[in-house]
Amino acid sequence: MRITPKFELERRIKNLQDILKRQGIDGAMIIQNVDVFYFAGTMQRAHLFIPADGLPVLMVKRSFIRASEESALENIIHLENPKEMVAVLKSFGYGPFNILGFELDVLPVVQYQRYHKLFEKTKIIDVSPYIRSLRMVKSPYELGIINESAGLNQEIYGFIRENIREGITELELAGDVEAACRKRGHIGMHRLRGFNQELGYGHLMSGSNLAVSSYFDGPTGGRGPDPSFPQSAGYKLIGKNEPVLVDYGFVYDGYIVDQTRIFCIGKLPDHLVRAYSVAYKIQERIKTLAKPGVMCAELYDSALEIAEASDFGEHFMGYPERVSFIGHGVGLELDEMPVVAAGIKTPLEEGMVLAIEPKFVFQDGAVGIENTFVVTADGLKTLTIFDEDIIYI
Amino acid sequence: MRITPKFELERRIKNLQDILKRQGIDGAMIIQNVDVFYFAGTMQRAHLFIPADGLPVLMVKRSFIRASEESALENIIHLENPKEMVAVLKSFGYGPFNILGFELDVLPVVQYQRYHKLFEKTKIIDVSPYIRSLRMVKSPYELGIINESAGLNQEIYGFIRENIREGITELELAGDVEAACRKRGHIGMHRLRGFNQELGYGHLMSGSNLAVSSYFDGPTGGRGPDPSFPQSAGYKLIGKNEPVLVDYGFVYDGYIVDQTRIFCIGKLPDHLVRAYSVAYKIQERIKTLAKPGVMCAELYDSALEIAEASDFGEHFMGYPERVSFIGHGVGLELDEMPVVAAGIKTPLEEGMVLAIEPKFVFQDGAVGIENTFVVTADGLKTLTIFDEDIIYI
Repeated sequence: MRITPKFELERRIKNLQDILKRQGIDGAMIIQNVDVFYFAGTMQRAHLFIPADGLPVLMVKRSFIRASEESALENIIHLENPKEMVAVLKSFGYGPFNILGFELDVLPVVQYQRYHKLFEKTKIIDVSPYIRSLRMVKSPYELGIINESAGLNQEIYGFIRENIREGITELELAGDVEAACRKRGHIGMHRLRGFNQELGYGHLMSGSNLAVSSYFDGPTGGRGPDPSFPQSAGYKLIGKNEPVLVDYGFVYDGYIVDQTRIFCIGKLPDHLVRAYSVAYKIQERIKTLAKPGVMCAELYDSALEIAEASDFGEHFMGYPERVSFIGHGVGLELDEMPVVAAGIKTPLEEGMVLAIEPKFVFQDGAVGIENTFVVTADGLKTLTIFDEDIIYI
Repeated sequence: MRITPKFELERRIKNLQDILKRQGIDGAMIIQNVDVFYFAGTMQRAHLFIPADGLPVLMVKRSFIRASEESALENIIHLENPKEMVAVLKSFGYGPFNILGFELDVLPVVQYQRYHKLFEKTKIIDVSPYIRSLRMVKSPYELGIINESAGLNQEIYGFIRENIREGITELELAGDVEAACRKRGHIGMHRLRGFNQELGYGHLMSGSNLAVSSYFDGPTGGRGPDPSFPQSAGYKLIGKNEPVLVDYGFVYDGYIVDQTRIFCIGKLPDHLVRAYSVAYKIQERIKTLAKPGVMCAELYDSALEIAEASDFGEHFMGYPERVSFIGHGVGLELDEMPVVAAGIKTPLEEGMVLAIEPKFVFQDGAVGIENTFVVTADGLKTLTIFDEDIIYI
């Protein structure tokens, strides 16, 4: 069991406090489970109050015992009823407040209204953009975990190469691969911040099922088992001479790496092979371009330029329904900042972790490559190592 | 691929419209993916407007193609930018509105603020309690699917009996079981309405790991792989003479059944065997009590009474941290209404589907039973069929 070290929590909290002070915000009330984990090292059900100045207070509903074991914070108390929060904070010398920050991008309205009553003379503002921008840049501690996660995903792609076979359903292959992930400590799902967004281990589809688009905000969709879960693997049988795209992330100690490879039993149609080489060329181009200070939009534009100059422009990043990004931050959530998309002026910074996923979608399949990279002073460093050719079985 | 039939959607929509009319609400804007699926038969990214009177309008961002294939509704249009929603509704003859309903229990504040601007002269109220109370009572169509889901879970419990073995980790067993679920079309996760609540296939723990409580709102917790996912299976090895509790739901065509059985390689300690028989007695008592018109609180109280009269009162429903319910509605979400808990005055109705899960938690393990039942005129009918004794291997 890895416990987030105290120095790491302190660094994260100090970074947020610097922003709070600069913005004139008295404190942040962190409630979303992933953010609580980021700042407190525990995911137990809790409110974490981070004052602009002073020690944070972790108020735990359940499990208090466990939060006390897992969190290196000093002030951890049991709070059964959130209504007593104001009195508790007062006992720590915090409040009344002029301005408090909440995670308004994820907090449901009904819950917000309750907090609004509790802190009725306080102005409530959204601190999620600040939190997300802090989480965007990973520390050496986080990069260490992400590296381990990448090592585990390398094993998984090896497992797929050994276990993929003709005539089984996508769901059957997915089940086998997911069991291999689970045994290695995968939490069994991805966390996403976006409302209504959900994902298990990732996308695994073959041939024509790769052309089915979906509600999931990515270039590929997939039919899924049924319309109640309209994405990823379905009952289609895996056949010969068609692409099997596996876009699986590993989630280890909370941290995600995202990766895509193309498998094929037999031989791929020529247009897919050619489109794959364009995707690969885009990846290589982005690797040379992506240095600290370069804007995300520049990466997207140069990717689009290569795609448009090829024979497959209209198949880039989805067909017929296209998404307008080629990459995204990953960390504790799959949809972290920055988004590598048109118009995004965020400059790259050292320590950002990005999944870059140029893909081309056709009626008879999809191809592409995805790796997770860390931005270093010298450019992108690949974290997700595995054979970067089409993997023929 | 099962498509929700038009008559079923029409029935659901009419039920909501009856409430809207009675409450003087002009219409409901449905956005949460599960509710959209319930009323429109598709889970594509969309806004579903249901007027108090007239035909609904499904406004789809992505995938429009797929929503058109999956939904039996008449008015399905592509809407790229939600800002155009007001004009679109006007073109169908809807608006301006005095009062509109949104799902404020799940809608994030930032998104709500955008809708508030769009409909600036409209009062926005929460219609989730109405939607949840409609979804609480299942139709014959829904019961048909739930029955299929129960049949698949029966196969899964048989699979566990055949595949459980000493010396493998909980995660390894979980992976194998989950692969068996996935091959049968399990969507790979449970949907929960509660903020911050998440669950994969369910809980699978053994011996002392059953005593670890967690953020998940249930009687059992489990260590999980690490503090970033502090529930269910972990790296503990499954041993002899200890309980292995498997609380796995099957999610088929969106519909959940919830079930728990106790497996044991060897022989269980006497106190666990005796506590199991109390749990079973509670289940049987509830089966005779639970008739239409009986309040949920009555079921909880009588369960508590039996537990308190036994030698294991303080171990009932969690130890040392206890939850205050013994059952809950299931359907498209795991935390549906009603909750079978102290003080809940909701009377049972024919067609409600309830998971009842009396459990006892000790330092060296936990035991109990859970089945999913439908409320009929004659009382509870068990849907989740499998050996109801402790299953010795």
